[in-house]
Amino acid sequence: MAPLAQPARRHIVPTNLSECMSNDRMREQLAFLAEIDALKTIVRQSPLADRSRRENSAEHSWHLAMFALVFADDATVDTARVIQMLLVHDIVEIDAGDTPIHGDHDRQAVAAREEAAADRLFGILPEDQAANLLALWQEFEAAQTPEARFAKALDRLQPLLLNTLTGGGTWAENGVSEADVLARYGPTIERGSTALWRHARTLVERHFADAGVDRG
Amino acid sequence: MAPLAQPARRHIVPTNLSECMSNDRMREQLAFLAEIDALKTIVRQSPLADRSRRENSAEHSWHLAMFALVFADDATVDTARVIQMLLVHDIVEIDAGDTPIHGDHDRQAVAAREEAAADRLFGILPEDQAANLLALWQEFEAAQTPEARFAKALDRLQPLLLNTLTGGGTWAENGVSEADVLARYGPTIERGSTALWRHARTLVERHFADAGVDRG
Repeated sequence: MAPLAQPARRHIVPTNLSECMSNDRMREQLAFLAEIDALKTIVRQSPLADRSRRENSAEHSWHLAMFALVFADDATVDTARVIQMLLVHDIVEIDAGDTPIHGDHDRQAVAAREEAAADRLFGILPEDQAANLLALWQEFEAAQTPEARFAKALDRLQPLLLNTLTGGGTWAENGVSEADVLARYGPTIERGSTALWRHARTLVERHFADAGVDRG
Repeated sequence: MAPLAQPARRHIVPTNLSECMSNDRMREQLAFLAEIDALKTIVRQSPLADRSRRENSAEHSWHLAMFALVFADDATVDTARVIQMLLVHDIVEIDAGDTPIHGDHDRQAVAAREEAAADRLFGILPEDQAANLLALWQEFEAAQTPEARFAKALDRLQPLLLNTLTGGGTWAENGVSEADVLARYGPTIERGSTALWRHARTLVERHFADAGVDRG
């Protein structure tokens, strides 16, 4: 059998090969940055502090990075890595959606969806950067390093702050009790920073004490 | 004349002084993080890539930090500092508002409003952090260091990308010509990275060439 005919290929040697390679790289980088614009359309449960609407995951990620810039300064963690982790931690939601803290979820199904999302989305990048960002996201999810634990703590502290600023926010909406809040937010925040949890706990206690007075 | 009576002061020595000091610090930090939530309500001119609405300055800052994470990797700049700069660069807009690129502005008046905003907003933080973040914002504004120039370049590149993804975006809205785009975006992007500008210029030229075909 005769070999299959190869399609005609044009062999124009580029005058500047490295320029072409860097253009390919840049094309992939810009394609990724265009794709992740969609994180701005993923709506979370948390309200903005002014209660005008719910927060989206892109602005939430910015807010968290600012939490890291402010608090990591006082902690013994690599601030730059915590910030990078928080910038990428929710990107998988573009494909997998947001998973609210108050609600029942099939954890395994959520994890599988998020892993597929991470492969597709970070995979748009040049190979070396795809591997780096995937590793960063996996480190966050695993919550084993001090940086990941600190990042996870901030990811719980931020909605806690928004809820206390908005008369209860998602707690009031979902009829979540003080004991539930302490159980769902406490361990994750305390694992990242006992000092932050000591302060956050006071905010929670004060919030529910005030809410009790209002109801009385 | 008798010395003025001193107000009675309670001298209760706290059992844990450092705890009290750290609580004060944390209170100021959380007050700052609550205040800057308002950046999510500052609406810019740029559309989202899906054209569903205009972008706000908080999600814009996240997107820019991702641009830095992706592109600074290839550049000779301190990536962590570029990211920090981009996270804080628009916070002054909470008081001073957004100043669109296409439009006439009294530059001195804008600068004065933004400086007052920086003093008030960063001033909510503990003194050392207020000074650090103010310095970071001033470095960005001055655009003299390689990090600030790179950050400024990304701040121009991101809306350029969004406009090319949305059939012209703010260029189409404001009747901005190709020559105007090259003049308003080119120098700032090129000063930060000649490689980025080479690529961005191609995007602009292709956009206006395609727009020309559409109009024909």
